[in-house]
Amino acid sequence: MMDEVKALLQYAFQTENPFTIAVSAPGSAGMETCFVNLVEPGDTVVVCRNGVFGDRMRENVERLGATAIMVDDDWGKAVDPEKVEAALKAHPEASILAFVHAETSTGVMSDAETLAALARQYDCLTIVDTVTSLVGVPLKVDEWQLDAVYSGSQKCLSCVPGLSPVTLSQKAIDKIQKRGSSVQSWFLDQSLVLGYWSGNGKRSYHHTAPVNSLYALHESLVMVHEEGLEKTWQRHRDMHELLKAGLNNLGIEFLVDESVRLPQLNAVAIPDGVDDAAVRSQLLNEFNLEIGAGLGALAGKAWRIGLMGHAAKRENVSLCLGALEDVLR
Amino acid sequence: MMDEVKALLQYAFQTENPFTIAVSAPGSAGMETCFVNLVEPGDTVVVCRNGVFGDRMRENVERLGATAIMVDDDWGKAVDPEKVEAALKAHPEASILAFVHAETSTGVMSDAETLAALARQYDCLTIVDTVTSLVGVPLKVDEWQLDAVYSGSQKCLSCVPGLSPVTLSQKAIDKIQKRGSSVQSWFLDQSLVLGYWSGNGKRSYHHTAPVNSLYALHESLVMVHEEGLEKTWQRHRDMHELLKAGLNNLGIEFLVDESVRLPQLNAVAIPDGVDDAAVRSQLLNEFNLEIGAGLGALAGKAWRIGLMGHAAKRENVSLCLGALEDVLR
Repeated sequence: MMDEVKALLQYAFQTENPFTIAVSAPGSAGMETCFVNLVEPGDTVVVCRNGVFGDRMRENVERLGATAIMVDDDWGKAVDPEKVEAALKAHPEASILAFVHAETSTGVMSDAETLAALARQYDCLTIVDTVTSLVGVPLKVDEWQLDAVYSGSQKCLSCVPGLSPVTLSQKAIDKIQKRGSSVQSWFLDQSLVLGYWSGNGKRSYHHTAPVNSLYALHESLVMVHEEGLEKTWQRHRDMHELLKAGLNNLGIEFLVDESVRLPQLNAVAIPDGVDDAAVRSQLLNEFNLEIGAGLGALAGKAWRIGLMGHAAKRENVSLCLGALEDVLR
Repeated sequence: MMDEVKALLQYAFQTENPFTIAVSAPGSAGMETCFVNLVEPGDTVVVCRNGVFGDRMRENVERLGATAIMVDDDWGKAVDPEKVEAALKAHPEASILAFVHAETSTGVMSDAETLAALARQYDCLTIVDTVTSLVGVPLKVDEWQLDAVYSGSQKCLSCVPGLSPVTLSQKAIDKIQKRGSSVQSWFLDQSLVLGYWSGNGKRSYHHTAPVNSLYALHESLVMVHEEGLEKTWQRHRDMHELLKAGLNNLGIEFLVDESVRLPQLNAVAIPDGVDDAAVRSQLLNEFNLEIGAGLGALAGKAWRIGLMGHAAKRENVSLCLGALEDVLR
């Protein structure tokens, strides 16, 4: 079953990386797995911040005794490659570029392919947050040459929360193997975890894995494979278009420019004069429908409407539009 | 539901510590949670090692840039309080004593109450591994004045793996609040996690918790509460006695002295001339019964027969004895 999970994750990530596993903890631990294994004290990491999760990356870097060079873009904007290039140029000591592919806090997609190409140009590896992007929008780990990529089980995979798919390129593995210091976390030290996930016969004990959740992940991945990634991506786009048309009719505006909008996470401006919390509770209590509040800089200003994985269906779009029309009337 | 989980965990741990939660990852992460929050670089920790998990504690201490003073006892023996006292006396700079209450690798119980009293005498806090002891044998966090205690969901709680109950005393919280350096792990930084678990109205977002597993833990804890801890402890002792009598009849010897034997984890010597792996596969394939192999120093020499939580039942003891008799004949 674990070998199948690995092969199916390779398909989902579009990679042949042999190191493709599920970390036994949520996406935040997947993020920490990438940083704690690839970053050493004293290293310099260029971190792109255009929402909550870029700032969490900074926390990870600083707690490791490394230096984070921040590249800031406004919440609701994509990471600007020109700013990233300027930072890479100004910091030749940087060894890693870290960015979020799909910002869950704002609904913005950044151009992972372009950012990764820049990183290579300046001899940096990439750490890429794909928590919300995996399976929802095209993500091509090998074609784009991403190095350390983590995701979460509970977004577009529609699995239970608590697992974090992670894949590491050969260059990432090489960097880990050349470390001068030991990985600060025993639990997340991937050189130890690999003995458990390697398919070469014997699996060495590292920790007790959340096996029930792994079975759930297996089933989620089988369903993605059955539908096919291209069709899954298209379904997310189609449902987004349907939602967009309906929201336009209701006079609700998107916060994010169409060119960088995530179909699976629709961040919209709360209409003037509307009570944010009251509407969300009414949707939940009367329609059994939960939409996300704004996070951080967008708290009180935005709603985030998810259309992820299993939830990206016609009936959910209809329910959401009907309920919003009813509640806002 | 989370407030109920907290209250039920307080009951299981026999504590009134307000900080009593379930870490969103397996027991190994619970261990790391205690070390990463309580230990700072440069600290000295006295670590008792009488099996696999004491050595994992050493790994935790060293990766944090702290010094581990090891107190070794043979695998299969309890931690010797005299050796511990000698180490505490020789290392007045030590601020923490770490030990395993119930060593899962050997089936040995150490005297947590005595060890904790020694720690207090030498001004040390305690970090205590109760992964296998919680609910299976008496564990009295408040009465014994233990400071940082972690366990696992999948042992005597009979829940799915992937959660680690943790409780911290006020003294442990004080030590965390007086830290001079930030906690190395963002994911396991309990000052952040507390905002999510505190019952004071609003729960602040930290990470997406494995909610399905938390519901499972809730149900496991409700079952423990319904039976009552005293009765649960007695049931584990009774089933152990039944198993012991049967194993004696089969000529199978326990590895651990009766006075420090864990009823829920029965480590026995593999009889002479018996093929370890063959017997275990036969039990698994023909009787749907899995017994544990020896770990570390006991690999190939011991079987570990679990009678934990829901599994500590007459029918399981009978099945185990009947199957062993059949296979070994």
